[in-house]
Amino acid sequence: MVRKQVRMANLKKTVIRDPFWSEKQRLITDTVIPYQEKILNDEIPGVEKSHAFANFRIAAGLEEGEFYGMVFQDSDVAKWLEGVAYSLAVKPDAELEARADAVIDVIAQAQQPDGYLNTYFTIKEPEHRYQNLHECHELYCAGHMMEAAAAYYEVTGKDKLLRVMEAMADNIAAHFGPGKAFGIPGHQEIEIGLMRLYHVTGKEAYRDLAEYFLDSRGTDPEWFAKEKEKRGWTHFDLDPADTKYNQSFAPVREQTKAEGHAVRAVYMYTAMADVAAATGDEAMFHACETLWNNIVEKRMYVTGGIGSTVEGEAFSVDYDLPNDTVYAETCASIGFVFFNKQMLDITLDGKYADLMELELYNGVISGMQLDGRRFFYVNPLEVNPGISGELFGFRHVLPQRPGWYACACCPPNVVRMLTSLGKYVWSENEETVFANLFIGGEADLDKARVHMDSGYPWEGRVSYTVESKTAERFSLAIHIPAYIKEFTVTVNGGKAAYEMKKGFCYLTRSWGAGDRVELSFELPVRRVYANSAVRADAGCVALKRGPLVYCFEGRDNGEELQALRLLPESAFVPCRTEDAGLRGNLVLKGNGIRMVTSEGLYSEEPPKAEKAELTAIPYYSWGNRGLNQMRVWMLEK
Amino acid sequence: MVRKQVRMANLKKTVIRDPFWSEKQRLITDTVIPYQEKILNDEIPGVEKSHAFANFRIAAGLEEGEFYGMVFQDSDVAKWLEGVAYSLAVKPDAELEARADAVIDVIAQAQQPDGYLNTYFTIKEPEHRYQNLHECHELYCAGHMMEAAAAYYEVTGKDKLLRVMEAMADNIAAHFGPGKAFGIPGHQEIEIGLMRLYHVTGKEAYRDLAEYFLDSRGTDPEWFAKEKEKRGWTHFDLDPADTKYNQSFAPVREQTKAEGHAVRAVYMYTAMADVAAATGDEAMFHACETLWNNIVEKRMYVTGGIGSTVEGEAFSVDYDLPNDTVYAETCASIGFVFFNKQMLDITLDGKYADLMELELYNGVISGMQLDGRRFFYVNPLEVNPGISGELFGFRHVLPQRPGWYACACCPPNVVRMLTSLGKYVWSENEETVFANLFIGGEADLDKARVHMDSGYPWEGRVSYTVESKTAERFSLAIHIPAYIKEFTVTVNGGKAAYEMKKGFCYLTRSWGAGDRVELSFELPVRRVYANSAVRADAGCVALKRGPLVYCFEGRDNGEELQALRLLPESAFVPCRTEDAGLRGNLVLKGNGIRMVTSEGLYSEEPPKAEKAELTAIPYYSWGNRGLNQMRVWMLEK
Repeated sequence: MVRKQVRMANLKKTVIRDPFWSEKQRLITDTVIPYQEKILNDEIPGVEKSHAFANFRIAAGLEEGEFYGMVFQDSDVAKWLEGVAYSLAVKPDAELEARADAVIDVIAQAQQPDGYLNTYFTIKEPEHRYQNLHECHELYCAGHMMEAAAAYYEVTGKDKLLRVMEAMADNIAAHFGPGKAFGIPGHQEIEIGLMRLYHVTGKEAYRDLAEYFLDSRGTDPEWFAKEKEKRGWTHFDLDPADTKYNQSFAPVREQTKAEGHAVRAVYMYTAMADVAAATGDEAMFHACETLWNNIVEKRMYVTGGIGSTVEGEAFSVDYDLPNDTVYAETCASIGFVFFNKQMLDITLDGKYADLMELELYNGVISGMQLDGRRFFYVNPLEVNPGISGELFGFRHVLPQRPGWYACACCPPNVVRMLTSLGKYVWSENEETVFANLFIGGEADLDKARVHMDSGYPWEGRVSYTVESKTAERFSLAIHIPAYIKEFTVTVNGGKAAYEMKKGFCYLTRSWGAGDRVELSFELPVRRVYANSAVRADAGCVALKRGPLVYCFEGRDNGEELQALRLLPESAFVPCRTEDAGLRGNLVLKGNGIRMVTSEGLYSEEPPKAEKAELTAIPYYSWGNRGLNQMRVWMLEK
Repeated sequence: MVRKQVRMANLKKTVIRDPFWSEKQRLITDTVIPYQEKILNDEIPGVEKSHAFANFRIAAGLEEGEFYGMVFQDSDVAKWLEGVAYSLAVKPDAELEARADAVIDVIAQAQQPDGYLNTYFTIKEPEHRYQNLHECHELYCAGHMMEAAAAYYEVTGKDKLLRVMEAMADNIAAHFGPGKAFGIPGHQEIEIGLMRLYHVTGKEAYRDLAEYFLDSRGTDPEWFAKEKEKRGWTHFDLDPADTKYNQSFAPVREQTKAEGHAVRAVYMYTAMADVAAATGDEAMFHACETLWNNIVEKRMYVTGGIGSTVEGEAFSVDYDLPNDTVYAETCASIGFVFFNKQMLDITLDGKYADLMELELYNGVISGMQLDGRRFFYVNPLEVNPGISGELFGFRHVLPQRPGWYACACCPPNVVRMLTSLGKYVWSENEETVFANLFIGGEADLDKARVHMDSGYPWEGRVSYTVESKTAERFSLAIHIPAYIKEFTVTVNGGKAAYEMKKGFCYLTRSWGAGDRVELSFELPVRRVYANSAVRADAGCVALKRGPLVYCFEGRDNGEELQALRLLPESAFVPCRTEDAGLRGNLVLKGNGIRMVTSEGLYSEEPPKAEKAELTAIPYYSWGNRGLNQMRVWMLEK
């Protein structure tokens, strides 16, 4: 039966203490969240006005003024609050919490007597509520605020925002559902938000409403067109006939290919898996598996990036994975982590943890500058200065991370992802404690307090200390990434019996008060080849080590990366870099060749091979040292 | 001193009798021109209405009705007439000529008392004449009709259209020029048309007006913006700030890179070279050389295609030559032939004849289906069904030739190019008869009647029979394509003394009444490599034999062309194909390998090589056998 086989870890009872991830969390708590707060308060000169807090004050009647910003401006506040909630678990901060409480007070005052909450419609078009679900993001904003409410409640125990959002959920439920108005959101998110409320409150009405929105989707592919005709006005002039864009082309259970806007898609799949587990819905779960397979087998970059076309920020067709015109939005990678976590919790299959790992170490953190100050939406696998970011077809592919965007979706998504890592690392059920990722730290679980010490991703050495709280036998299940073909595991220094099941190493015993598990494995440099159907990668190889995809930058390898060739017989070895711009990452060095051609545009003279010393850097760290060329896929001689 | 060093051959005194080109000319005279006439008469059901002849009848007051079509619809009639003129030289046809005469009668009646001729403005907006040179193509249409007038006069001796267009030229001259209104055309073409009038009539005013339009261009890059502001209306909403698009960003003599819309660019360069030669303008000629070098050294496909981006159908930046998002408009290749012919006539340098040859055998005729019934505007070097013509960035790259377009520029350009080949093959001056191309036939020149018999491009065998008309010594100068490194030449079977100068083999003697020159050379299959700065061609090789670029189609080589590898050591040999769809072309056959990958999207297993028998077909013949993949550049192992 489809159900979640694990309990979510309580974020407050986890700590990340990891040589790799702790620094990223520090960037988030110390740099990104304060910066984001200033943005929302319009305190950063030169950055486009947000007005997002002000909109709530105006809607609450605390301030005079007009609504300003995108129709989904409220979601920026929601995402900030969700990030703040998690960050308070990572790093308690009474002043920050007090400011968040104050924001929540304003939100509560902005709520209308009937529970409705949305500053755009409250201030600007109160007569148009719920008339333009296609374009106007009302349900989307509500979904994000529900996520924030659940998170804030989980971490702080304060339920003010939770009650606000329950009232809003009730308002939505009063409008939409069987026997009431038909409705589906233009941008899926409310389904996730409602499921978060359901998990926190246990109120099945929220689960049922989430299920309603999912099950209604695609039952009438012309519904957005009808909605438009009925209301007679438009906000963005979105084409309602483009039903692939928002996954309303078919009932969700019948969808077999990942289509349309990638973030909408993976948010929807996340909710589908959550609902499937909550209701035991086999058909819904099967659709999730089919869609996951389509992504992972045919529509995903080697970095985990998804959504290969800028048109609609969308999935393209199978095997169409251009490296230089790619979209691969940071948010889509984050949403795919959400989806994989749901699938992992249902199946206990490590293949989903593998994908979480791939995304976290590559597609997610490539979105953030190493100093936490600039962000990518688009995560290309090839950039060429003078082309990328400048020419037709490439304008969206910025070769360097810009500052905060007017449409600020990705940075806050990175914030909530990285501050809630503890939930992804650990989970638990009656028989087993699961360690899903090699991210060091501690978790205070029901059966045990577990400590993980990890040298990952640089070293293949991870140890666990288990302080059991029970006399009963239970398992510690350690996810072994699929690329690790051999490993050794010891318990208290001695050879340990274990069982491998779906990518997890199960160690089952009566645990004492400080049993130590040591896991070690090699981290060779691996060469990865794409399926021959992927035109963009033909003749090419990519390098990986551990979970990290590597790439080549012009700065280390000279210009014209396309003229370089990797040699099949030449080994790459990891070296600590002295380049301060890379902040101590391990880089890979090896010998290759540079093909030198004659000067003309075309020549009958074959290119000559010259020796070249090559350096690859972790993909997530590209674009941190100024404008230069970058490639993940390199031609192999 | 810059001047033309040869006289233009009289088209009426040349005949093409060539195993390769005669068939193409037959397609034009027997299929394309009649079809085009039916289109212009709105006699083809299912094809978008042209109304081009009707517009003239309405403007002439012979018929009631409204103008219909593009603002430049008149140019379709002009191009048809120019093509008809040349075709009457190729294949006299009294009925066709009578119909053309009748069209010219209507055109004459459509001309306004002051000489003005343009059906759009005459019928629709008489008050807006000459107010929107940026968008409205008045001068463009006039230029094409001038070309038609000159061609019709040259071939038929009838001067009615010539007089009409002289009057129109006088009308333009009365409006624009020093001391009158300032003006430059939004789409260059009037300059070519005026120079054609000048060459036919000898009236220097036309040359001066052409020079005026060229010299005025770019002197005020904001002029189109000022023009727009002054008139206060727009036709297409073209952005006047995009001065690169129409080459008005700088004075033409100061332009060093080929920028903007490729057809506009090469039409302008053609006129620049023509004017430079007519006025002895060294600076103008130098600009032509600089722009030519930029194209040939940095901005041209191996097929001769120019204009690598669909945005503005334009040149991109140096070395940016994507094969699958290419534009490479057929018209641009034809325009580049025009430009090269001008440069050849000035310099007698065979490098320009090499480019004419490259374009004619590849970029020009790839535009036309082998049966003459369908046409490409865009000439890609890679197509992938399901992507090309369908997805964002690729929609303009049709994988199969469609029928006639609403904007019918390319087919008529192919018509006029192929029916006027004789002018490109032969030229003459006091000392020399020039044979610029290996295209068999005859030319009745001043000094001699020359007959050429050619097995080109399939065989390296060309012979000439010279029937001298003079007792004086003169040279027969035969252009030897640059790729031919060795050849033998005999006169009357004996070894002949010759002198090589700038790619021409000069045979100087007293010619008799039937002296026979025989030229022979090998036509090996050549491998061509692109400069390493061309990212799109990295690791790849292209095949050529003689002037022909070859390509690979899925039909002959199985799908996934990107999985195939050419082997450096494996020879390709020419074979006569039995595939009726290729009409007896020579194809190239050789051994290669197919890289077979494991089934997943990414794998650590290196691809395995399987032997593969490969077949390449001439590039111009691609897309004649149904929808399938195509590539010019193939990865080399």
